[in-house]
Amino acid sequence: MLEFQYQALPGRVVFGAGAARRELAGELDRLAAKRVLLVTGGSAEETARALADPLGERVVTVFAGVRPHVPLRVAEAARALAASVEADALLAVGGGSAVGTAKAIALTTGLAILAVPTTYAGSEMTSVWGLTENNRKTTGTDPRVLPATVIYDPELTVGLPARTSTASGLNAMAHCVEAFWAPDRNPVSTLAAREGIRALAEALPRVRHDPDAREGLLYGAYLAGSAFAVAGSGLHHKICHVLGGAYDLPHALTHAVVLPHVLAFNAPCAPEAAAAIAESLDGGHNGDNGNGGDPVARLRALNTELGVPCGLRALGLRADQVFEAAELVAPLVPEDNPRPVDLAALRGLIHAAWAGTRAEAGGGK
Amino acid sequence: MLEFQYQALPGRVVFGAGAARRELAGELDRLAAKRVLLVTGGSAEETARALADPLGERVVTVFAGVRPHVPLRVAEAARALAASVEADALLAVGGGSAVGTAKAIALTTGLAILAVPTTYAGSEMTSVWGLTENNRKTTGTDPRVLPATVIYDPELTVGLPARTSTASGLNAMAHCVEAFWAPDRNPVSTLAAREGIRALAEALPRVRHDPDAREGLLYGAYLAGSAFAVAGSGLHHKICHVLGGAYDLPHALTHAVVLPHVLAFNAPCAPEAAAAIAESLDGGHNGDNGNGGDPVARLRALNTELGVPCGLRALGLRADQVFEAAELVAPLVPEDNPRPVDLAALRGLIHAAWAGTRAEAGGGK
Repeated sequence: MLEFQYQALPGRVVFGAGAARRELAGELDRLAAKRVLLVTGGSAEETARALADPLGERVVTVFAGVRPHVPLRVAEAARALAASVEADALLAVGGGSAVGTAKAIALTTGLAILAVPTTYAGSEMTSVWGLTENNRKTTGTDPRVLPATVIYDPELTVGLPARTSTASGLNAMAHCVEAFWAPDRNPVSTLAAREGIRALAEALPRVRHDPDAREGLLYGAYLAGSAFAVAGSGLHHKICHVLGGAYDLPHALTHAVVLPHVLAFNAPCAPEAAAAIAESLDGGHNGDNGNGGDPVARLRALNTELGVPCGLRALGLRADQVFEAAELVAPLVPEDNPRPVDLAALRGLIHAAWAGTRAEAGGGK
Repeated sequence: MLEFQYQALPGRVVFGAGAARRELAGELDRLAAKRVLLVTGGSAEETARALADPLGERVVTVFAGVRPHVPLRVAEAARALAASVEADALLAVGGGSAVGTAKAIALTTGLAILAVPTTYAGSEMTSVWGLTENNRKTTGTDPRVLPATVIYDPELTVGLPARTSTASGLNAMAHCVEAFWAPDRNPVSTLAAREGIRALAEALPRVRHDPDAREGLLYGAYLAGSAFAVAGSGLHHKICHVLGGAYDLPHALTHAVVLPHVLAFNAPCAPEAAAAIAESLDGGHNGDNGNGGDPVARLRALNTELGVPCGLRALGLRADQVFEAAELVAPLVPEDNPRPVDLAALRGLIHAAWAGTRAEAGGGK
């Protein structure tokens, strides 16, 4: 019996090498944007200013003070700037921080966002906003913060260090895998997730030595963002959110380490998802070689190939924090996770991820 | 090099057996609809009235006079009725005629549409409207006519005669296949098209004897509509549009007869599309049996199994109309059709479709 609900999000995507240089003015025309506030910062600022330069006075000013997790004071400064220059559109160039700050402005002003991502974070495809005050992050969903237009230009990501790219790409991979059992999944978000896994698994091993891999990585990141935007987050993201928030572990690497363990835990109760993930990791081909069928082994091999540490202890989690983390995660687990989750199961799962114990399909106990 | 643009359409889809009965009131709540005009007619009217009955006075009146191709006078009568009862939303229950009439009202009023399709036409997923006056059909695209919500309920299509279902399902198949080379295709519309072909090829042969096949057929029709809504129409639809308009051939069967010929024509210049279509026709499996690789033979076999006549002459096209049809189609062919199309090629293609000559991959000459 097929049953689903799907809230499809609007949005225009322009994808291609050189697209940012070539299409930016035309895409701003489509939005009837005459007074643009450029939102950027950090390592993306130089790229952002170079893209804005040919637009002349149409870019009325630049907010270059974006910060990770969008501190409220940063959001308020950016909103004040947007009001003072009477901006009629926002151009966000950068990673999650730039897009997040533009979202914070759009949340209170309704201004349209044109996003030009320079990382593989995927936030540009979602209606989710986040603001941080006193070390506490508040998140919400609002259609006003969904970018109207996203320009994906692989050329802009060529300079991203291989290590950052790998971590960010594996973060995108986690969004795709999780989309198979996240609460609002549907057959269309699953299609995007499958294609995203295929593209990421193909591109990730090439990032260190082949600039052309950037295209597949950015394409996969786009699909990961769009799958996550619809399906939402499940067990894996709840675990990673707690680990990142409570113990300050690095976001993307935490995803990479935890993912095979969550997949191993869920796979026995989600055999169709596991088979589809295995097929996609294997290039979208079904059963034409010998390693099909074990997506956990395939993910572990990918992590090893990419130099991801094999346990959370290498990322700084202490042994005595494992059970505490399990307690924090327990109340957050979605009810319809494919495999029932109790505290004992969570302890086993997080301990295995901490130790880097071999995560087998069916493991976690 | 991956380059594309994708204008994603918003919209809410609710899919499931019994969903229309179960979810209709709640979905109208989401639209804040208090004064609903029910738009229906023909064989869907009884179903429509049964669905509306529990809604009581919330359905303020019924327009039951829909006609194929939305004659302008019908549209004007429906618009006048919507105005006179101060409707604040439209509930379209039926096939392309009911949805098309609701779109005609929405085009001038901006009223939100909740569509409950009872056929496999797919129009509910598109922003395309059509109106007919003096035997001439005008079409256009407007975001206002895209239904806000679509409820797909396979139970509502169980009563559709097998012959009509087959023709309508093959029409959906044509939308999916054509989405591989239609002008505004992109990787995401192609994913939907692949999944649609898979679902339709699996369900179509079962329609005559298995009510459960309705689920796959409606799911495939939804994907076909969504792929077509984004990718638009190409060579195949231009041919069928001319044949239907100028010679009054039956819409859906014309699609079924012509499709293998267009695929045979394009396949040599679109080998990746042909391979993906073959794989999807074969259940989404890649190379695990002997008949992969020839999507034309597979489509022909499906037509034969479903009792589709093998040539347009059986549908009423006369031999002397073949060259005339080619002349009418020639100026309409999209420039980026995978294989260059000249008048001689069109004559060959349409003559083969007329005669029911074996359409081989690489054929048409």
